[in-house]
Amino acid sequence: MAAAEEAKEKDWIPAAVPGAVQLDWARAQGLPDFHVGDNVRQWQGLDESHWTYRAALPALPELEEGERLFLVLEGVDYECEVSLDGERLYRQCGLQTPIQLDLGERARAGAAVCVHVFPAPKSRALPLDRSQADHSCKPPVAYGWDFHPRLIPLGLWRDAYLEMRPAVRFAANPEINYTLDASCTRATGRLQVELAETAVEGVRLRWRLKSPDGRTLVAEEIPIAAGATKAAIPFGIDVPADALWWPHDQGIPALHTSEVELITADGAVRDRVVRRIGFRRVRLVMAPGEWDTPAVFPKSRSRPPLTLEINGRPIFAKGSNWVCPDVFPARVTAERYDALLELARASHFNLLRVWGGATAPHDRFYERCDELGLMVWQEFPLACNLYPDDADYLVVLDQESRSLIARLKDHASVVLWCGGNELFNAWSKMTDQSLPLRLLNRNCYELDPWRPFLPTAPIDGMGHGHYVFSDAATGEEAWALMQRSNCTAYSEFGCPGPAPAAVLRKIIPEDELWPPRRGTAWETHHALGAWQVESWLHLATIERYFGPCASLEELVERGQLLQSAGFQGMFEEARRQKPTASMALNWCLTEPWPCAANNSLIAWPCEPKPALARVAEACRPTLASARIRKFAWAAGEGFDPEIWLLNDAPVGQAAVEVVVWLELDGARHELLTWNTGEIAPGANRRGPRAQFTLPKFDDERFTLRLEVRGRPEWNSHYTLLKARAWQASAAVEHVAGALNV
Amino acid sequence: MAAAEEAKEKDWIPAAVPGAVQLDWARAQGLPDFHVGDNVRQWQGLDESHWTYRAALPALPELEEGERLFLVLEGVDYECEVSLDGERLYRQCGLQTPIQLDLGERARAGAAVCVHVFPAPKSRALPLDRSQADHSCKPPVAYGWDFHPRLIPLGLWRDAYLEMRPAVRFAANPEINYTLDASCTRATGRLQVELAETAVEGVRLRWRLKSPDGRTLVAEEIPIAAGATKAAIPFGIDVPADALWWPHDQGIPALHTSEVELITADGAVRDRVVRRIGFRRVRLVMAPGEWDTPAVFPKSRSRPPLTLEINGRPIFAKGSNWVCPDVFPARVTAERYDALLELARASHFNLLRVWGGATAPHDRFYERCDELGLMVWQEFPLACNLYPDDADYLVVLDQESRSLIARLKDHASVVLWCGGNELFNAWSKMTDQSLPLRLLNRNCYELDPWRPFLPTAPIDGMGHGHYVFSDAATGEEAWALMQRSNCTAYSEFGCPGPAPAAVLRKIIPEDELWPPRRGTAWETHHALGAWQVESWLHLATIERYFGPCASLEELVERGQLLQSAGFQGMFEEARRQKPTASMALNWCLTEPWPCAANNSLIAWPCEPKPALARVAEACRPTLASARIRKFAWAAGEGFDPEIWLLNDAPVGQAAVEVVVWLELDGARHELLTWNTGEIAPGANRRGPRAQFTLPKFDDERFTLRLEVRGRPEWNSHYTLLKARAWQASAAVEHVAGALNV
Repeated sequence: MAAAEEAKEKDWIPAAVPGAVQLDWARAQGLPDFHVGDNVRQWQGLDESHWTYRAALPALPELEEGERLFLVLEGVDYECEVSLDGERLYRQCGLQTPIQLDLGERARAGAAVCVHVFPAPKSRALPLDRSQADHSCKPPVAYGWDFHPRLIPLGLWRDAYLEMRPAVRFAANPEINYTLDASCTRATGRLQVELAETAVEGVRLRWRLKSPDGRTLVAEEIPIAAGATKAAIPFGIDVPADALWWPHDQGIPALHTSEVELITADGAVRDRVVRRIGFRRVRLVMAPGEWDTPAVFPKSRSRPPLTLEINGRPIFAKGSNWVCPDVFPARVTAERYDALLELARASHFNLLRVWGGATAPHDRFYERCDELGLMVWQEFPLACNLYPDDADYLVVLDQESRSLIARLKDHASVVLWCGGNELFNAWSKMTDQSLPLRLLNRNCYELDPWRPFLPTAPIDGMGHGHYVFSDAATGEEAWALMQRSNCTAYSEFGCPGPAPAAVLRKIIPEDELWPPRRGTAWETHHALGAWQVESWLHLATIERYFGPCASLEELVERGQLLQSAGFQGMFEEARRQKPTASMALNWCLTEPWPCAANNSLIAWPCEPKPALARVAEACRPTLASARIRKFAWAAGEGFDPEIWLLNDAPVGQAAVEVVVWLELDGARHELLTWNTGEIAPGANRRGPRAQFTLPKFDDERFTLRLEVRGRPEWNSHYTLLKARAWQASAAVEHVAGALNV
Repeated sequence: MAAAEEAKEKDWIPAAVPGAVQLDWARAQGLPDFHVGDNVRQWQGLDESHWTYRAALPALPELEEGERLFLVLEGVDYECEVSLDGERLYRQCGLQTPIQLDLGERARAGAAVCVHVFPAPKSRALPLDRSQADHSCKPPVAYGWDFHPRLIPLGLWRDAYLEMRPAVRFAANPEINYTLDASCTRATGRLQVELAETAVEGVRLRWRLKSPDGRTLVAEEIPIAAGATKAAIPFGIDVPADALWWPHDQGIPALHTSEVELITADGAVRDRVVRRIGFRRVRLVMAPGEWDTPAVFPKSRSRPPLTLEINGRPIFAKGSNWVCPDVFPARVTAERYDALLELARASHFNLLRVWGGATAPHDRFYERCDELGLMVWQEFPLACNLYPDDADYLVVLDQESRSLIARLKDHASVVLWCGGNELFNAWSKMTDQSLPLRLLNRNCYELDPWRPFLPTAPIDGMGHGHYVFSDAATGEEAWALMQRSNCTAYSEFGCPGPAPAAVLRKIIPEDELWPPRRGTAWETHHALGAWQVESWLHLATIERYFGPCASLEELVERGQLLQSAGFQGMFEEARRQKPTASMALNWCLTEPWPCAANNSLIAWPCEPKPALARVAEACRPTLASARIRKFAWAAGEGFDPEIWLLNDAPVGQAAVEVVVWLELDGARHELLTWNTGEIAPGANRRGPRAQFTLPKFDDERFTLRLEVRGRPEWNSHYTLLKARAWQASAAVEHVAGALNV
C-alpha cells in the first residue's frame, strides 16, 4: 500500500469495472489495439506493477435494525488488499473467490474504498512462460501459450458493488442435494439452508419448486427455531422423462425453478434465492468390453470408465475445448457467450471441455449451457505445470476450488470435474500422489460427490493430439492416426487452419503480409513457431499437398480445406469407434485473440472458419460416413472407403440405402449401394468397403459422395485431392504393404 | 437384545476375551479341531446366530473428582450393542473402531455389562461366498477364499476392560506431524494434543523427545489456557542419517521416543502417552524412463509412480503378501507375529503388503515392523467385490478407515495406504469414480497426507499373477512370464507348493491321504479345485515334469521343488528389471490354516516350506543371478543363461569375477567367467549370455552354479530338470523360433 499511498493525485486514471488494469491504462495512455501487429508488446509488463482501485462511498441510506452494508467484489484478479479510509480490511489471493465485506460502522459517505492489486504471481523470474504460474491459481494461459500472447490480466474482472443486506438472510446459496433413483424417475433429497446469523423468533423458511411446465411440485413453509442457523426440507418428487435435464441431442434440457425465501414474523420476505435446477443423473461408465481387458497375466487394471451416462443412457460426447474467448475475461459479454454457445449447439456439439489453462467463464456461460443442453466438463486452474505440494499453494487452491464448486454446483450442464490439463505427462510431471490433485478430489467428494471427478486429462484410455493434418516427421495423416488409435475418449485433437483473409489483413501489417515469415506479426499471432516449427500455419505442409501458393487468399483457402478435411475425418472416425470410444472433442472451439493460424474452429471474436460447417456435418446425430485411408490419391490406386451409418440419436431408424459414388472430372463413378438394415437407437452400422481403381484424372480435387435415399439430411461428402508425385509413391508403398497382410 | 434377554441361564457358556464366539462355543460343546479333515463344517453357520457376552462389574474404587470409569472394547467383530443392566448404551458396526464408553453414574458393582453381537453381515443369502461381504467392512476372506475355509469370526477379537480415567486427560493420542526437508536431515512439525475436557486452571503440557541413542532433543513444557481443549508445540530437530528410520536393508530403522504428559497445578502427571517415532520421508516416485512414455500421439498418460523412495533413496521392495496367519485374528499371539516377522526379515524381505481381504493385524505387528525395518503397505478392508456407493456403507467405511488411520499413522513402517485388493478388475468392477475409494482417498489426505495412497492394486503398470509354475492352457512357465512382462511393480505373483508331509498327515485322514482326490480333505484344504481345476496341488503339472509320483513324500518333494524354483526365478527376474520394476511381492507369506497346498512360503502356523530358503537367497541384497529361459532341458539344446550381478545394497562394490558352470552327471562344465566391473550402489549389472550345447546326460536334475570369487555369500545355484519327451520337443520349437528372429 505504501506505493499507493505515495501515489500522486495525477497518477490516478479512470477505471472501468468489470475490467482489467491493462485496459484502463491503455485507455488512459492511448495505447494502440493490442490485437494488431506487434502492438501487444506495448501492453506487456504492466502486470509487474502494483495497482490500486479507489472509489468514494456514496451517500448511504439509513440501516434498519440488523441490516448490514456489504462491499461485494465478485472477482479480483489476483492478489489484493481491500481497505477503507486507509484501514486494511482484508487480503486475498485468487480470482474465483468473491470478497464480501461487512463495512460495519466504518462506512460513511465519502470514505475511500481501495482495492490494492499486487503484481501478477510469478514463481520465478525466468523463463517468461507458463511455468511462472506453477505456484498459484492464476490461469497459466496468460503467461504465454501457443495461441495466447503473454498478457497477464490483473484487476476487478467481475462486478463490484455495495449491497444492503437484511438481518435475516442466507449465509450462502441454499443447497438442493438430490439423487435420482435407479430408474431415473424419482428425485429424493434435501433443501438445506444456512443463515448468516442465528435466527430470531418467528423466522420461517419457504420453498417452492416448480416443474418445467410451471406446476408446483413442492410448496413448503417451516419455522426455523430461534437460535438456529440451519434448516432443511427433505423432498421426494417424481420426474417424468420429459422433465429430466437431457443434453439437447438426447432430449429436452428441462429446468425446474426453485424459489427459497426467508420470512420474518411480520410476514416480510427478507431474503430470496431463485435458481433453476435440472434433475439428471450423471455417471462415468465403462465402455462395452473394457472389463475383458487385461486378458493375460500378469494382470494390470481395466481402463477407467470415460463414457458419460446421463439418466441411465450412455452418451457419445461430441464437442470442443473451450479455451477463453478473450485475453481479458472481463471483456466477454453475455452476447459473446450466447453467440459462441449457439454456434456450438448448432454444430451438434453436446459437450464443452472448459480447459484448465484458462479462467472459468462467467455465470452466463453455465446458465446458457443449462438452457441449451450443452454438457460442461469443468477443470480447475491447473495446466501443464508441476503444481507443488506446498502448504501456501494448497491453501489458495482449497479456497479457489471450493469457490468454483459452490458457484457451479447447481448447474445441470456441469457433468464432470477435472483437476486440470495434461498434468500426468512429461511436461508437467504431476502424479496421482500430488497433493493438489488429492485436495481437489477431496473437495469434489465432500461438496459434490455425485458428479464424477477426473484428476486430469489425458488419463489412461484417453488421447490427446495430434495437432497436425500431417506429421512433419512421419507423414502420418490425422485420419490414419485416428484410425489406428484405440482410445476410450478423444479429449483433444487438433487440425490447424489459417484465419480468414480479412482477419489477417487486419492484424498483419501490409508489408509483412506476404509471404508469411518468421519475425513478423505472423509469428506474434502464432502462425509460425508457436509450437512445432511449422505451427500453426504449416505452410510447408500446405505446399506439399497443393504446390506453391500464389496469394494470401489461395494459402488461406487451401489451409482451411486441410483443416476442414482433417477435422471431418477425425470426428467421424472417433464416432465410428463407438462404443469403445465415447468422446470426440477437438482442440479448440474459439481463441482469445486473432491467431493468424490456429486449431480453433471460430476465429476471434466470433468468426466461424469453414471447418466449423464440416464439423457440424460430422456431428449430425445421424449421417452416412466413409472411413478413407488418406487424403491424396493417384490414378491406378485402389480407392477403398469403408461405408458406415453413424447414429447417436436416441431413436432407431428404418433401414436406408446408401449410394456411394465418386465425382471425378465431372463424371459419376458408382462404387456401391448399401442397404443398412434397421438402425438401432444410438448405434452405428458398419457397411461394406468399396474397391475401385482410380482412373487417370485431371481434377486437382474430387469428391466422394454418400447419398442416403429418402434421407438427404444424412448425406455426406468428402473432398479429396489428386496426389502429387511424392504422395503417389508413398501411396503405392502403402498398398503394397496392405497386400502383404 | 430380546433374544439375549430371553436366554435361559443354562444357555450361557464361558467366553474367552480376546477371542471369538465360535472358539467359545466349540470349547463348550467339545467340537473337534477345525483344522483337521472336514471338521470345519461343524464350525460353520455359527455366524448366523445372535450372541451375547456378559460380565458383572467388579467392586469399583471410589472415583476422585472428575475421574471417569470407562468400559473399553478395543475391537468387536462385527455389529454389536452394548448395554449396562439392560439399558442400551451404544451400537456400532465395524471391527477396527474401539468402543470407549463412560459408564458414568450407572456403574455399580455387580451390574451386568452385556455386548450383544449380531449375526455376521451378509448382503444376500446366496452364493455363500465373498460377495456376501460387499456391503460391509467385514474382511471378506472369512466368507470363503481359495486358501481360507468359510468360517466367519464374530465377537470380541481384541481386549476388553474397565479403565479409570483422570479428569485431565488426552481425548486421543497426541499427534506428531512433521515433514523432512529436501535433504532429509531436518524434521519440522508440531505436537498437537486434544483434551477430553476443557482445561482447568494450571494444566501444563510436557513433551520430551529423545533420540535413538537417548539424547533429549525436545524438552518443552507449556501451560494450557483454562478452558482450552487444544495445545500444540512446534518443533524442529536435526535428524542425522543414522537417526532416520530406514528399511533394514538400507540402514538402521532408528526410533525416537516421545513422551507426552498432562500435568495439573499440583504437579501430578495425569495422563502420559509414550510412543516411538521413526523419522523418514516416503514418496512414490517415477521409475527412470517412465516420463518418456507415451511417446506417440494420441498421447495418453505416463504410468503412475510405484517406486518407493525412502529418505530420498529409491528402494526395490522385496517381500510378500500378508494374508492373515489365522482364521481367528484373536488367536494370533505376539509370539506368532514375532516369529513370522523374524522369518520375513531373515528372508531379506523389506516390505509386506497387508492384503485388504483380511483383518488388519494387532498393534504388535506394526510395532515389530517398526523395529525390524520392515515396510508395510496397508490396505483397507475391501477385496474383489463391488462395494457400493450407498450412504449406509460409506458411514461405516468412513468410521473404520478413520480408526485404522488413527491406529497406524504413527508407525514409521507403514509406507503406503491402499484402498483394497483388485478392485479395478472385472471380478470387482469398481472404478476410479467409486465413492468408497474417493472416501478413502479423502480420509487419507485429511488425516495423513504425507503417506502415499493407491486406490487399489493392481493399477496401471502393476502386475498381479500368474499363480502357477506352468500355465495349464498355454504351457508358459512362471520364469518366461516374468521375463516377457514389463511391470513397474509386481505386487502379486504366486507359485503353489504342497504342505510338508507331516502337516498333510495331520490334516488329512489316513484313508484319504493317497492318492489326492476331489471330495476329500485334500479339497477342503484347498489342494484341488480351489481356484483353477488343478489348484493348488497341480498334480498334473508335477507329473508332467517328473512322471508319476509313487508316494506322498515324493509328491511333496517334487511339488515343493517346483515352488522353490518358480519363486526363485520370479523374484530374481523382477529384480533384473530394476529400475523399471521396483517391487517384487509374492503371493503369499503365510496362511490362515493348514492348506494342503498353497502359494504360501510358510505353512500354518509357522512352518517354513523349502521355497522360503530359496526366496531368501533370491532376495539377498547382492547376488549373482541367471536369467534362464525354462526349467526342463534336453540333450542337444542350447543352454543359454544370461548372467547378472544384482545389487540392492546402498553401497557400491568392487568388481568381482563370476564363474559359471553346470553340474551334470557329476561333471563340471564351465560356461564362462565374467568380470562384473565396478558395482554401483543399488544398481544391477547385466553380464554375458552363455552358449552351451547340452551333452547327453542321465541325471533327472542338474545344477547351474554361479560362483563369485572371494564373495561366496553372493553365490547362486539353480536346480534344473531333464526334459521329458513333451518338453524336449517344445524346447526345440522354442529354439527354432528364436533362430528365426
